[in-house]
Amino acid sequence: MPITVKALQKTGPDQPFRVATIERRDPRPDDVVIDIRAAGICHSDIHTIRNEWGEAHFPLTVGHEIAGVVEEVGEAVTAWKVGDRVGVGCLVNSCGTCQECRAGFEQSCLEGNVGTYNATDVDGTITQGGYAEKVVVNERFVLRIPDAMAFDVAAPLLCAGITSYSPLARWGAGERIDGRPKQVAVLGLGGLGHMGVQIAAAMGAEVTVLTRTLRKEKEALELGAARVLATTEENFFRDHRGQFDLILNTISADIDVDRFLQLLAPRGVMTVVGLPPAPQSVGFGSLIGNNKVLAGSNIGGIEETQEMLDFCAEHGLAAVIETVGIDGADAAYERVVAGDVKFRVVIDTSTFEGAEVEV
Amino acid sequence: MPITVKALQKTGPDQPFRVATIERRDPRPDDVVIDIRAAGICHSDIHTIRNEWGEAHFPLTVGHEIAGVVEEVGEAVTAWKVGDRVGVGCLVNSCGTCQECRAGFEQSCLEGNVGTYNATDVDGTITQGGYAEKVVVNERFVLRIPDAMAFDVAAPLLCAGITSYSPLARWGAGERIDGRPKQVAVLGLGGLGHMGVQIAAAMGAEVTVLTRTLRKEKEALELGAARVLATTEENFFRDHRGQFDLILNTISADIDVDRFLQLLAPRGVMTVVGLPPAPQSVGFGSLIGNNKVLAGSNIGGIEETQEMLDFCAEHGLAAVIETVGIDGADAAYERVVAGDVKFRVVIDTSTFEGAEVEV
Repeated sequence: MPITVKALQKTGPDQPFRVATIERRDPRPDDVVIDIRAAGICHSDIHTIRNEWGEAHFPLTVGHEIAGVVEEVGEAVTAWKVGDRVGVGCLVNSCGTCQECRAGFEQSCLEGNVGTYNATDVDGTITQGGYAEKVVVNERFVLRIPDAMAFDVAAPLLCAGITSYSPLARWGAGERIDGRPKQVAVLGLGGLGHMGVQIAAAMGAEVTVLTRTLRKEKEALELGAARVLATTEENFFRDHRGQFDLILNTISADIDVDRFLQLLAPRGVMTVVGLPPAPQSVGFGSLIGNNKVLAGSNIGGIEETQEMLDFCAEHGLAAVIETVGIDGADAAYERVVAGDVKFRVVIDTSTFEGAEVEV
Repeated sequence: MPITVKALQKTGPDQPFRVATIERRDPRPDDVVIDIRAAGICHSDIHTIRNEWGEAHFPLTVGHEIAGVVEEVGEAVTAWKVGDRVGVGCLVNSCGTCQECRAGFEQSCLEGNVGTYNATDVDGTITQGGYAEKVVVNERFVLRIPDAMAFDVAAPLLCAGITSYSPLARWGAGERIDGRPKQVAVLGLGGLGHMGVQIAAAMGAEVTVLTRTLRKEKEALELGAARVLATTEENFFRDHRGQFDLILNTISADIDVDRFLQLLAPRGVMTVVGLPPAPQSVGFGSLIGNNKVLAGSNIGGIEETQEMLDFCAEHGLAAVIETVGIDGADAAYERVVAGDVKFRVVIDTSTFEGAEVEV
């Protein structure tokens, strides 16, 4: 029997959240029912709701940074049991058999993966995300949250954490060059950037935060950055030419790509995880000279997401968050868009308790 | 005592070649004097002469695809002896001590390398290239030409060969994916592309040539391509979406980068070695989706250039060339620019013999 749960729902890009009841599917044999304890607010949620990434399927519940406890498991589930501390990220299904799925890149499933919300599920329904009391998910897309990690600071790892971790791991942030740590620059200090700083530092890199101003300098240093540089400083690009081995670009605004590429040492890599709306201008000479690399990165596969969670637990890392109740979600959206959050907002889903259902 | 040799010289971008005498430096203890037997014409030579890459230092002799025989060695030279078959490519000096030089990336020398022509040498003179009878080069920048390889077909390997080989090696053209050969597309079938096809195929890749028309299909197949596809075909980009693991982009014209990135499979790489004059438009979404990579590549280091020469000899590869005498160089330039060459023009430097010196 389908499970009826309370959820925060949007009925259109300009509508406020409302508390609605939505139905979670009757658990299949390989499904896990999760009692959600915390749900992170990701900028992607806002892009989706505001139709900035195409027309959303309203009414819609978003949220793909989900942490909670297993409440029920299907009869074929062996990996999870009631009471397990678990999470769900950006994906809830994929074919499982294509080359990409077999190689652990479910996000690149050749048959098309199923996103946690606003995606067409295998049964044709539109997936509904984690701003809700419960979620029903195929067991392959459930992650284990290490015991040491609270639900609220774990939730953002499921998107912001893996989105930062995967490119840092792929491009060897923790490797040493000539016996010295790699110089890693994190461009932007928001939800993604604040995880990138922590993870890169824990991997062994020397981390520099690049932002427009020094407004968040203190916080950046506390997160593990060796320094913060303001990109608006006079001669910034000249003074720091060739200094970085790896730049993690987390911002989704236009940048002067060629000038940032100049900050890279030979064979340096700029990996981009933020999506500016317009195409960027890239001089091929900026890449050819000194063999530089511009690389995109999109979340991470399930195995790597678990690896990231374990890495964060091992190194005592977690998201730095502000918590809101369900009635604070609309205001939080405004603040996320304004960049006025340190560094992630998480919805305490226990506040659904007693909330009046509007529809 | 400096060595006076005949050379082809340009006095300005629009001037014809003239036979001049130029002076090669009095060999230092670590220098090698090379009697040049063949000099390839690279499109870079033409860009330089035509001031397309900045103001050239006229009068100038270009040429950085040089093959010949050691005629004399300085007293400190141990690696080379008179009679050795050798080559010189795009570099004739670098600091030798920086991180890049020590790692075999002399092309990225942090102190600035010395190009084979139109560059300021360590003694302050402007380097003069290989369209000449002889050249004097520091022994560290001399390559061994395998015995099996004729001078004329070896010369173009020193630039076109290594420029294609290095990115194919770096990005694993010879690796297998799930037990199958990598699908490598070579974009453009000119001097670089025709080496890229041969080298990628010899590495074990399945090679597809992408060109505007099928005009050179027969030659491409003879070089080792499995197929040739015309990018101007209707639905080309739709029909070949996601089919390639690696694209070697050898053309120096504008392309629709985003559409070509769509041809890549997940984690696919487009490596660019051709330099379009204008910046290109790149949507970051084209890179982020499926974790794609856009990477520049600039010639190769000395050790890797030797590795490439040995690889070509082992696999029976060489440049496919047309030979001209020194009086054919101007006409050859026009044909190179028109793309009307299969696939590289090499100057037979024995034709300097008996040529009348104009200055």
